[in-house]
Amino acid sequence: MENLFDYIDNNRDQYMEYWFNGLRIPSVSAEKKHKPDMNRMAEYLLRFLREELKFDGRLIEGKGNPLVYAESPKVEGAPTVLLYGHYDVQPIDPLDQWKSDPFDPEIRDGKVYARGADDDKGQIFAHLMGIKSLMDREGCLPIQIKCIFEGEEEVGSDHLSDFLKRKDAQDLLATDLIVVSDNTMAGPGQPAITYGLRGVIGFEVIFHGPNRDLHSGIYGGSVWNPAIALSRTLASLIDENGKIQIPGFYDGVRTITDQEHAVLGKIPFDEEQAKRDLNVSDFFGESEYTITERRCARPSFDINGLTSGYQGEGGKTIIPSSASAKFTLRIVPDQDAKRIIQATEDFFRAQLPPGIRMDFHRQQGAEGMVVPLDSPYVSVASDVLEKVHGKKPLFVRDGGSITIVAELWKVLKADLLMIGFGLDEDAIHSPNEHFSLECFCNGIKTSALLWTDLAKMKK
Amino acid sequence: MENLFDYIDNNRDQYMEYWFNGLRIPSVSAEKKHKPDMNRMAEYLLRFLREELKFDGRLIEGKGNPLVYAESPKVEGAPTVLLYGHYDVQPIDPLDQWKSDPFDPEIRDGKVYARGADDDKGQIFAHLMGIKSLMDREGCLPIQIKCIFEGEEEVGSDHLSDFLKRKDAQDLLATDLIVVSDNTMAGPGQPAITYGLRGVIGFEVIFHGPNRDLHSGIYGGSVWNPAIALSRTLASLIDENGKIQIPGFYDGVRTITDQEHAVLGKIPFDEEQAKRDLNVSDFFGESEYTITERRCARPSFDINGLTSGYQGEGGKTIIPSSASAKFTLRIVPDQDAKRIIQATEDFFRAQLPPGIRMDFHRQQGAEGMVVPLDSPYVSVASDVLEKVHGKKPLFVRDGGSITIVAELWKVLKADLLMIGFGLDEDAIHSPNEHFSLECFCNGIKTSALLWTDLAKMKK
Repeated sequence: MENLFDYIDNNRDQYMEYWFNGLRIPSVSAEKKHKPDMNRMAEYLLRFLREELKFDGRLIEGKGNPLVYAESPKVEGAPTVLLYGHYDVQPIDPLDQWKSDPFDPEIRDGKVYARGADDDKGQIFAHLMGIKSLMDREGCLPIQIKCIFEGEEEVGSDHLSDFLKRKDAQDLLATDLIVVSDNTMAGPGQPAITYGLRGVIGFEVIFHGPNRDLHSGIYGGSVWNPAIALSRTLASLIDENGKIQIPGFYDGVRTITDQEHAVLGKIPFDEEQAKRDLNVSDFFGESEYTITERRCARPSFDINGLTSGYQGEGGKTIIPSSASAKFTLRIVPDQDAKRIIQATEDFFRAQLPPGIRMDFHRQQGAEGMVVPLDSPYVSVASDVLEKVHGKKPLFVRDGGSITIVAELWKVLKADLLMIGFGLDEDAIHSPNEHFSLECFCNGIKTSALLWTDLAKMKK
Repeated sequence: MENLFDYIDNNRDQYMEYWFNGLRIPSVSAEKKHKPDMNRMAEYLLRFLREELKFDGRLIEGKGNPLVYAESPKVEGAPTVLLYGHYDVQPIDPLDQWKSDPFDPEIRDGKVYARGADDDKGQIFAHLMGIKSLMDREGCLPIQIKCIFEGEEEVGSDHLSDFLKRKDAQDLLATDLIVVSDNTMAGPGQPAITYGLRGVIGFEVIFHGPNRDLHSGIYGGSVWNPAIALSRTLASLIDENGKIQIPGFYDGVRTITDQEHAVLGKIPFDEEQAKRDLNVSDFFGESEYTITERRCARPSFDINGLTSGYQGEGGKTIIPSSASAKFTLRIVPDQDAKRIIQATEDFFRAQLPPGIRMDFHRQQGAEGMVVPLDSPYVSVASDVLEKVHGKKPLFVRDGGSITIVAELWKVLKADLLMIGFGLDEDAIHSPNEHFSLECFCNGIKTSALLWTDLAKMKK
């Protein structure tokens, strides 16, 4: 074991090189102009899988960005594992807040700064390097690994989701265990196994008022201002205690049991430190739940973007012709995403004033999920994490959503292991996203040891 | 008289040339990059006043854009008139909605399309051409005319307002009558004398939440979202009937008397036609007032712009770090602008949640005003408008604000005559602003005849 870890440490520079080359490809799935970069990124991964890992692989083309699929040979008597990851990244704006080029990784203070440094390229490359370390030392893997990497996680996973509906896809991806590293540890040095995810539904609403921007002197007081109408509906969607006002929204929300309250209570969270880190004087939300519970086990509503009228310097005295909002609802088991989407649209329609027309778009959706903790794979993973970090993992629920993971889990009927290599403070989805070299190397070690120890299980 | 009108019609092309050359200078006061254009525009006006009208003039430089001042010789026994106008224009965005270049005037269907075609360059040039027609025919003017043109009307008139506080400025601008054409007629072919203006106060508020955009999965439900906080406060500022909720906001609002209700009731307003024109299914506001009254004699609140978080294609699952709104309050006599500014800031501060910090900026302010209708100048102007249009003018209040006019009126203690040459439908402050050639020529005729007939008054 020590030999393996030393080997990985000694080859760090080489491993970083592969990762950095991946970070240099601006694979932003939300922006059409990056479509060629999506293809380049998929090809880069496939080439690595084939040439460096000797996997049998191909791109699966479809309506959206290509899926990268590759597998190592079947190993008799050992489990098969499906490694899921995504190679697309979030948009980079506001660009002026980045301290270095988001697509030219820069090391500062032992951390690598780039869009995707953590989410999810950093975690994918940690796994790929873990596999490479075994291949380089042994020439073969002790278990069969299937990789499925998609390029649409940040925009709804449509392609993989469609693919999963096909019988041949289900056969191709058939596995004993799904492994996902698109989460965080419980804190620096504190490994975690993630046993739950929130779901997410993304919306965009556009309120249309008059057919052109109007002079607010000539018409003000007589024509519905779409920015006012939109503000009123958005404001009425949530109260000051964080309670969402959409009728029936909380139907099905699973109660947090005393046992789970205790499990979640072990997750370290320094409230004062977090306030300083975020520069906020206080937290928000449902006061009857801990902040950790609000972040992972309770539903939430957030406006992600607002756009209306004049945004330039100084003022412009207009009634804007339209106003739009992007927003997300995070949901938990056993809320019904479909019903909530309808209830949300109904909520907006019911409040729409007579002078306003609305475009209502649903952008993405994923159910919340919680997986059982009594699987033998969890116990192997727990031991591996303890060997790498010298500390037992905590069991956590993640407030974020991996749109497709709930679907993979449901469709493939396999066990699911979510082990995050990153940290909350990595600023994923924000300017100056980063991933520490320590997290990267521990990820590689976790990956290499996990495959090794999973092979020793009785199938 | 007919000779004068024919003369003006015959010289129309020449008059349009001067106007068009003025429209080609993009004098957008709200945008710093146009500072050189502001100077070019001021110089263009000054050159015209000196060379074509033989006025004695100069630029008055100060902190902002230059004031253009010029005067013709004093005429014994005749009144002196101060002609006010502004040479700055509104920003042009959204540019993609313009059918032709906003700074290259194009004639379509007898209308001239350009930013400033009406507001206020079109109306300034109508007056300048009216004066030119008299100079060209007579070689001198029957009354003394002083011109003061500013370049900051759309951004608060700071320079002229500061200048007006000086005794030498008050002496320079001393006058019997202030004439302003920065308004509209009561409808096509229906002249109007504007006897009231709403005041306006412009604000910009920025709500700051966490020090960076946060992942809405990791933090959603636990951190105040500044876009939600801002929506909530904006929404609470007004109810669905258009009643503004700032404490004390309506203090001092002058009651609309039965007599004024009758005067305003004469102003034609075709509700169904207006709905079709604006493409709205219904109007907004205080149902106990007519739509005309809501537009000019009642206060109003409008959001002019909203900005927060991600505005690109697709979605981005963030809690944005900040959210901002530009908004205006329109006020009427005898509301106190100063008190309302304070009450508005208090209203925002009182609602500010603990996790949010606020920047609160007041951008511009003007009191509402109503001038007496029994002045002899009004009766001369009324006759002039009837001679030009073949119809008696209506007496109207304007819902818009001319920031500086209330100040000029108060400081110079002169009579005030507001005669608009444009139409409501001219799309000022909007894409495809225009001014009809008919309005332009009638403006020239009104101007030329006004100076002629004012000269016949006993001083």
